[in-house]
Amino acid sequence: MPVNLKPPAAERLLPVKGVALGIAQAGIRKVNRKDLLLIRLEEGAAVAGVFTQNRFCAAPVLVCRDHLQSGGIRALVVNTGIANAGTGEQGLAAARATCEAAARRLGCAPAQVLPFSTGVIMEPLPVERIEAGLPACAADLREDNWAAAAEAIMTTDTLPKAASRKVSLGGTAATVTGIAKGAGMIRPNMATMLGFVATDAAVAQPLLARLVCEAADASFNCVTVDGDTSTNDSFVLIASGRAGNAAVADAASADYATLKEAVTAVAQELAQAIVRDGEGATKFISIEVRGGRDVAECKAVGYAIAHSPLVKTAFFASDPNLGRILAAIGNAGIADLDVARVKLWLDEVLVSEDGGRAASYREEDGARVMQQAEIAARIDLARGPAQATVWTCDFSYDYVRINADYRS
Amino acid sequence: MPVNLKPPAAERLLPVKGVALGIAQAGIRKVNRKDLLLIRLEEGAAVAGVFTQNRFCAAPVLVCRDHLQSGGIRALVVNTGIANAGTGEQGLAAARATCEAAARRLGCAPAQVLPFSTGVIMEPLPVERIEAGLPACAADLREDNWAAAAEAIMTTDTLPKAASRKVSLGGTAATVTGIAKGAGMIRPNMATMLGFVATDAAVAQPLLARLVCEAADASFNCVTVDGDTSTNDSFVLIASGRAGNAAVADAASADYATLKEAVTAVAQELAQAIVRDGEGATKFISIEVRGGRDVAECKAVGYAIAHSPLVKTAFFASDPNLGRILAAIGNAGIADLDVARVKLWLDEVLVSEDGGRAASYREEDGARVMQQAEIAARIDLARGPAQATVWTCDFSYDYVRINADYRS
Repeated sequence: MPVNLKPPAAERLLPVKGVALGIAQAGIRKVNRKDLLLIRLEEGAAVAGVFTQNRFCAAPVLVCRDHLQSGGIRALVVNTGIANAGTGEQGLAAARATCEAAARRLGCAPAQVLPFSTGVIMEPLPVERIEAGLPACAADLREDNWAAAAEAIMTTDTLPKAASRKVSLGGTAATVTGIAKGAGMIRPNMATMLGFVATDAAVAQPLLARLVCEAADASFNCVTVDGDTSTNDSFVLIASGRAGNAAVADAASADYATLKEAVTAVAQELAQAIVRDGEGATKFISIEVRGGRDVAECKAVGYAIAHSPLVKTAFFASDPNLGRILAAIGNAGIADLDVARVKLWLDEVLVSEDGGRAASYREEDGARVMQQAEIAARIDLARGPAQATVWTCDFSYDYVRINADYRS
Repeated sequence: MPVNLKPPAAERLLPVKGVALGIAQAGIRKVNRKDLLLIRLEEGAAVAGVFTQNRFCAAPVLVCRDHLQSGGIRALVVNTGIANAGTGEQGLAAARATCEAAARRLGCAPAQVLPFSTGVIMEPLPVERIEAGLPACAADLREDNWAAAAEAIMTTDTLPKAASRKVSLGGTAATVTGIAKGAGMIRPNMATMLGFVATDAAVAQPLLARLVCEAADASFNCVTVDGDTSTNDSFVLIASGRAGNAAVADAASADYATLKEAVTAVAQELAQAIVRDGEGATKFISIEVRGGRDVAECKAVGYAIAHSPLVKTAFFASDPNLGRILAAIGNAGIADLDVARVKLWLDEVLVSEDGGRAASYREEDGARVMQQAEIAARIDLARGPAQATVWTCDFSYDYVRINADYRS
């Protein structure tokens, strides 16, 4: 059961001028499900992306990185069911063939197409089914098709994920709309997640490349479900340039700040939706670490807590077995951490200080917070000015069930 | 259900001259269970230990490190139920009070006693119950009491763990006997594990300090259940010196090699028993990584696989979803890994080469191996001469159940 997450209302997803989406049931791995998405961009769109750090990255990721070098992107093709990862040279050929099929259909060059895949690893991609599904996608292309697009990229997600924001850039209205999919293998530096965010604002290409990194660092790179980083993670930001604003080209400008805030808000909403719909999740947990020497050590502490199966099962059980959080902090690899200065709160309840349980702590207070569907664990390392937040979920029977049954 | 593990036959656990063990039901956290162990050493024993790397290390670990500096150790006191970790100054006082109580009972100095605790974190240690239990321990002291001692240190272990070996040092017979407890929070650089191995051989103190590190690196530091490193991990090696051999004092000597082999064999048997009895384990998995540039990167790959919840749930499901192993390898942090050269076998079945599925691979072969209770995953990185092995177990519903219910 996703935690405080509802399917996006289609009417609240704002169309993005110059970005049309079409979906199809291509039968890539299972029949009778939306599993193919085509995104067509008008000429002149700027596109930037960030991708998985996994060395066994999928064939489509390699092709995306290649095609983004030359620019002029006109289309994205996304399939679910098969990840086209761990597929060697044959997989690269299949990803390229996907681009060729879309390029033929849309009348552009194959290098102007970006391919994306998600699903089972080490199985061959059935390119012929993608090719056979593209006419239906093309016939379905509409700018107000974001809700169906969000459904078409789901794997073990139980709900589609989409979000929108409106902004005003120098008096000109622009929109930002995005979709994403989770749901396991979610970890910093991307996840088995695909995220696509588009704006009709005009943005200079170098600044868009910066914006996609900044937005990812504040959103998708702050979430974890199970600590695994997938082979296919991709987050792509599109600026169609059709809003009519003066192109955003200066990182110090008010327009950049405005647009960054909106893109980051959409990306955060999507990233948090991935955690809320994490495999088997019953709790949504924010881990806020402050007082670190730098952001890296704050994130290390956050992830040490978020990845500890003992902490995650305690959250699942609503058990204030909070020593497990201390043990995870001690495990974060900060060699000179003075544990006597560390403080831990659950929401507003001070749990630990002076290396042990806080004198004021009462078990019933901890138990009350642990019952909540949303919990903030707050840690003060008391050794510097840096802070970072990590979002995660608990670890339940259903995580095991979902991942033990995934292929069957 | 532990994987191919039986309780040790008491008659096969060889007494170690100069090392007597006594147990009691002290009611430390629950009534009617063996939860207190006293080990008494004759004068002249050498003792060395290695301890957790967790910064929130438990109070008894701090006291052990301190008391081992001065040497002359005459007793070890081990309790289960309460870990005395995350307990601050009060916890240190409790660990010291435990030493004082044992010292009074045995007529030695408190600094000659090593305290050990395992159990729930952040709860106060009931020293008065330990003190009240010590007379029963003292009355029970016997050299042939290893089987009961193995039971007295269990927490979520379903079976006691003990092993013995005989050796001949320069024609003199000596014995090596040890006990250990797991069972979750097991990870390199120790685990929530306590391990105590004793020999009656005479060994010079500096060489014993070396031996305990070498044996740990080849045993307890090669196992993982859930990737968590506990606050209390301790592995202690005792050499009572009562066998009558010429003291082993040269690391290049045949006697050192003989003793090291036996101590390592006992430590490996104990470490593997911990994995076989890992919380919820249904499979015992060896991950053998070769062809690395150094041992560190081989271990990194082994642990990336062993810690991946996606890999562990696939093993639980007996599902040859082997792309998850490739994804874990890609996640091990080797930035310049050439995935096209990596090979993966399950037992003798070649699964992957050239960055994808091996041409010879048949799903039924993978499925057959995955059904086994013991599985070897073998990886060749093809970039150097180093190798390392990691032992782990799968991830089942019962892991979640055990850790969600642990305190209730």
